[in-house]
Amino acid sequence: MQHPLSAYVRNLHARFSTLRDGQVANYIPELGLANPDHFGIVLVATDGTIYAAGNCDQTFTIQSISKAFVYATALQDSGRTKVLRKVLVEPSGEAFNSISLDPVSGAPLNPMINAGAIAIAGLVGGGNAAAQWQRIASSLSAFAGRPLTVDERVYQSESDTGFRNRAIGWMLRNNNIIEDDPMPVVENYFRQCSLLVNCRDLGIMGATLANGGINPLTGQRVVDIEQVEATLSVMSTCGMYDFAGSWLYDVGLPAKSGVGGGILAILPGRFAVATFSPPLDAKGNSVRGIAVCRQVSRDLGLHMMSAMHNSDLVMASEYSAAEAPSKRFRAPQATRLLQENADRIRIIGLQGELTVDGIDRVARRFLNRRQADGPAIRLGVLSMHRVTSITASAARLLQELRRNISAEGGHLVFSHMQYCAGLEPAMRQALLPQQSGFLMFEDDDLAVEWCENCLLEILGHKEDTREAISLDDFSFFDGLDTAEKLALKGLLTSAQFAFGEEVIRAGDLNDPRVFLLLSGEVSVLMDTTNGHRQRIATLCHGMIFGELALLGQTMRTATIQADSDISCWVFTATALNELIYAYPQLKSKLLEKLARLFAGNLRQANSFIVKLVSAPYESQPKSRRWRDGEFYDRAAH
Amino acid sequence: MQHPLSAYVRNLHARFSTLRDGQVANYIPELGLANPDHFGIVLVATDGTIYAAGNCDQTFTIQSISKAFVYATALQDSGRTKVLRKVLVEPSGEAFNSISLDPVSGAPLNPMINAGAIAIAGLVGGGNAAAQWQRIASSLSAFAGRPLTVDERVYQSESDTGFRNRAIGWMLRNNNIIEDDPMPVVENYFRQCSLLVNCRDLGIMGATLANGGINPLTGQRVVDIEQVEATLSVMSTCGMYDFAGSWLYDVGLPAKSGVGGGILAILPGRFAVATFSPPLDAKGNSVRGIAVCRQVSRDLGLHMMSAMHNSDLVMASEYSAAEAPSKRFRAPQATRLLQENADRIRIIGLQGELTVDGIDRVARRFLNRRQADGPAIRLGVLSMHRVTSITASAARLLQELRRNISAEGGHLVFSHMQYCAGLEPAMRQALLPQQSGFLMFEDDDLAVEWCENCLLEILGHKEDTREAISLDDFSFFDGLDTAEKLALKGLLTSAQFAFGEEVIRAGDLNDPRVFLLLSGEVSVLMDTTNGHRQRIATLCHGMIFGELALLGQTMRTATIQADSDISCWVFTATALNELIYAYPQLKSKLLEKLARLFAGNLRQANSFIVKLVSAPYESQPKSRRWRDGEFYDRAAH
Repeated sequence: MQHPLSAYVRNLHARFSTLRDGQVANYIPELGLANPDHFGIVLVATDGTIYAAGNCDQTFTIQSISKAFVYATALQDSGRTKVLRKVLVEPSGEAFNSISLDPVSGAPLNPMINAGAIAIAGLVGGGNAAAQWQRIASSLSAFAGRPLTVDERVYQSESDTGFRNRAIGWMLRNNNIIEDDPMPVVENYFRQCSLLVNCRDLGIMGATLANGGINPLTGQRVVDIEQVEATLSVMSTCGMYDFAGSWLYDVGLPAKSGVGGGILAILPGRFAVATFSPPLDAKGNSVRGIAVCRQVSRDLGLHMMSAMHNSDLVMASEYSAAEAPSKRFRAPQATRLLQENADRIRIIGLQGELTVDGIDRVARRFLNRRQADGPAIRLGVLSMHRVTSITASAARLLQELRRNISAEGGHLVFSHMQYCAGLEPAMRQALLPQQSGFLMFEDDDLAVEWCENCLLEILGHKEDTREAISLDDFSFFDGLDTAEKLALKGLLTSAQFAFGEEVIRAGDLNDPRVFLLLSGEVSVLMDTTNGHRQRIATLCHGMIFGELALLGQTMRTATIQADSDISCWVFTATALNELIYAYPQLKSKLLEKLARLFAGNLRQANSFIVKLVSAPYESQPKSRRWRDGEFYDRAAH
Repeated sequence: MQHPLSAYVRNLHARFSTLRDGQVANYIPELGLANPDHFGIVLVATDGTIYAAGNCDQTFTIQSISKAFVYATALQDSGRTKVLRKVLVEPSGEAFNSISLDPVSGAPLNPMINAGAIAIAGLVGGGNAAAQWQRIASSLSAFAGRPLTVDERVYQSESDTGFRNRAIGWMLRNNNIIEDDPMPVVENYFRQCSLLVNCRDLGIMGATLANGGINPLTGQRVVDIEQVEATLSVMSTCGMYDFAGSWLYDVGLPAKSGVGGGILAILPGRFAVATFSPPLDAKGNSVRGIAVCRQVSRDLGLHMMSAMHNSDLVMASEYSAAEAPSKRFRAPQATRLLQENADRIRIIGLQGELTVDGIDRVARRFLNRRQADGPAIRLGVLSMHRVTSITASAARLLQELRRNISAEGGHLVFSHMQYCAGLEPAMRQALLPQQSGFLMFEDDDLAVEWCENCLLEILGHKEDTREAISLDDFSFFDGLDTAEKLALKGLLTSAQFAFGEEVIRAGDLNDPRVFLLLSGEVSVLMDTTNGHRQRIATLCHGMIFGELALLGQTMRTATIQADSDISCWVFTATALNELIYAYPQLKSKLLEKLARLFAGNLRQANSFIVKLVSAPYESQPKSRRWRDGEFYDRAAH
């Protein structure tokens, strides 16, 4: 089976192969030798996946497309302030080789015309022209993800005939835009234009910009996101020379073309499109390249201004601690209090890129519920498991929200922050000087437990620390008659375990013990596939554990560990089975209890699953019968 | 508690109130009367939520900001081709009142300079100038969500002094850009500039563009998305006149300013920012407005070129039918076959805006698994429950993927399409002429059941239609000894139900019957809160139902309905309880069975929940102890 986009790109290639307009550039003799039939198209996703058709391994000189990448490099090395002082960013409305200097400052109008690009070549890092050339070559190679080399004959040809560019160099020197000998800078500019790339290279260079400055193949950060932002801005307004306005209108993508026949267009965060076809139109842009980009933008809906977005999607799920309590089981009074009040604890799962518009929606969820709830105390958990990044401004807004909730006696805590690199540092950075810190938990369960403890405290609940002393304190035995309880009591032996001890060990065979917890707490732990130990439950006095032994279970599936020094009563399922002749209903009463418990938990789990798989925002289906698969048959319409 | 963005906007207002540079426009006398202290800021989300500070109810004349909205209206009425023939879209690099006509065609260079805007005023719908004015007024009112009126004194003042604009009108008539008397068109232009808005109106007009052309307050579609796309493109390159390049570089938002003191900036899909402050700089832009927009873009991270995006997020969840089978229970052989093979059925839950980059990732999931699986037949369900929209190009790519899977004998079906208006029509539209149709189901469960049926057919399985005739065919009774089975048999009576009959009715009290299904099928149905009837399970011969009666359950929680004519054996829990003295282990064996069944289902449900709440893409947490809540304390660092 083939990927539809592979077929699409191949069809596009076949379709535009017949387009034979334009002339191969011949302003330097070497370029005139290009084969006008060469034609390559590459579509690259932000993860570096390439869909290619045609002559995509054929190298050609990068020419003016280099201007965008050298500009990004100069910004990285010299900083925006210095670069903007030397080269402006206004469209000139004139052709690529226009000199277009600002009448007041003498600065080139933008870095995409030759005058600007030459000035920019002098602004990359390195103490002298040789070091600057190394920097240009290595930076553009990092964008491409492989070492790029110069086509020496094209370079020589450019150097031999580049009189106008030398004139520009001296003009820039005259205006003090270049502060030293301009000739080595102009040579570097000739060299950068003569770098050899193929269509794939160009695509990956574009994907690196689309991916925010990180090369998706090598994983290397080539330039910071601010440089990408600035470079794409300049490409939008000036990248296609005096065709820029129509291009942005029609194709809607920041782009750059070169007289070598390449065009590169970028949809930030989504795709790069690179084309190669030497015949150019009167404005110096590849004829097939323009046609392909226009078609791709239309077919694939890539116009930047149509990028729609649903800010609500930042909230992947929302539920309350009443629907999914923590795994800490509590004494009856506390359990009841929580059942009645735990809907005040909201757990919201966030996902994807956290930006200000998304955090705005989160803040409104808190505000709106607050209004609906009246002045109730609010406890919130933001679960970050599926967050992939956060902007500095979103982090600031989130800290502000947390602070506003705290100011009214509520709490906003975070969980699962460890899954996204950079999330915790960004949240730290966003703290104001007067804010002391924030609370985060490894998982939702622990965060919810903390909120439940808070809620109980707010409700004035005092933890019941009395030792359970009779079977009546174990609700599991409700419904047994006096004789049955007495018989059961006869089976009990006493046992103590120290903090940290493993009472039951996962994997143990034929352990028939059932435990009645008299004091202290234990946790039920399971090892997950990734070597993590996951808490399933925490139990307190008055609860039983190991009860699956009553089902004749032969292997323990979880480890039970003492969270404090504990004391228990123990009986064995084997001993219980022996009572069955004297007390025929005893075992079935216990099994019925067990089945009822599981049935209740199962019902709760199933309704939670239904909640999780349905949309967190409101949507109403049109009414339908519950049971139909419908075939949309175009012949019938 | 207040929303952090409300506080932010108020702080911004306080901070820039002290900025007192600039001069109130006085090129017409009436504008010179504006109060230089008036200052309003509005930030609007795409759902119409407004964060406002300052003089946001103070009206002022919209002036040049009207150009953007009238341009969108003209595109809607006259079509892109006609409009582009009359007015180009290239930045002029010149001031707002420059005449800037193309030397060849005589067309204005863009619709944001006066010459272009006057030509555009003549391109809105309506047979004559009066009708055109009605159209302009009603369209701009629809953008604002309330009727806008003209400030007659400003209009009169503009009309009395607009000699240069009249000259432009005649120049356009001379170049045949305006084909009729230009004077009524120029008057309409004066009127459109004199429409009164306040900062909120401007914000909502901007939010309508940010929201793809639909006014978020009224829900009215004002212009189509292509018009929004085109208008925002022109605003990007020409909206701020000869300041456009620096503006896009620095602020990174399509924008438009007016000499009345308004500025409107838009981040498509996310926000609109509107400001009002009359003092202008030398280029005719509001001084405070520019400062505020620059600051907002920086603080809230709104620069358009930095809009990052994670295409993988389109997949909200992924699981196989082995992990979550359909609710149809099957005879043992079919069940075993499915258990072994149902991981070939993949259910992928999609979410949000479906665009080509997202569908690319979905297609690759299918391709990559296919490669890993070898040449296995593939069955896929795309669950659309959380999809909010689809682009035409994404729908085409999805249909192409479906067709490619079909071509190799697989199937891709859809579920939950009914939740998103426009989804099904878009999918229909995207069918190629040779494609006959596609299959969609109301929910995932029904789609999975259909795939399971397919898979069984592919595996050569023939449905076992033989009537169950002995207790041994009911796995529920495995482990009973001969005497117990015989005793149980003595309790059985025979019963038949017709297709559609309700065998058990939810809400019934004290129904002690347990059913053994001998032939036919029944469905377990529950009423959901939204009046929907949800299938919980479908059962076939060899299965039992009503078994919760064994737990002494007093109220039925689900309805059981015959999906065909069925025949059963029935016994009552009451009768079973009477056997307990003679067969003490019988009941506890059955209860143990029940508890074990529930425990197994519970374990499966819990691990499915863990899968659903964790990320669908790979992420590895850094190693930590399983139990810690960590307070990030800045004082300690």
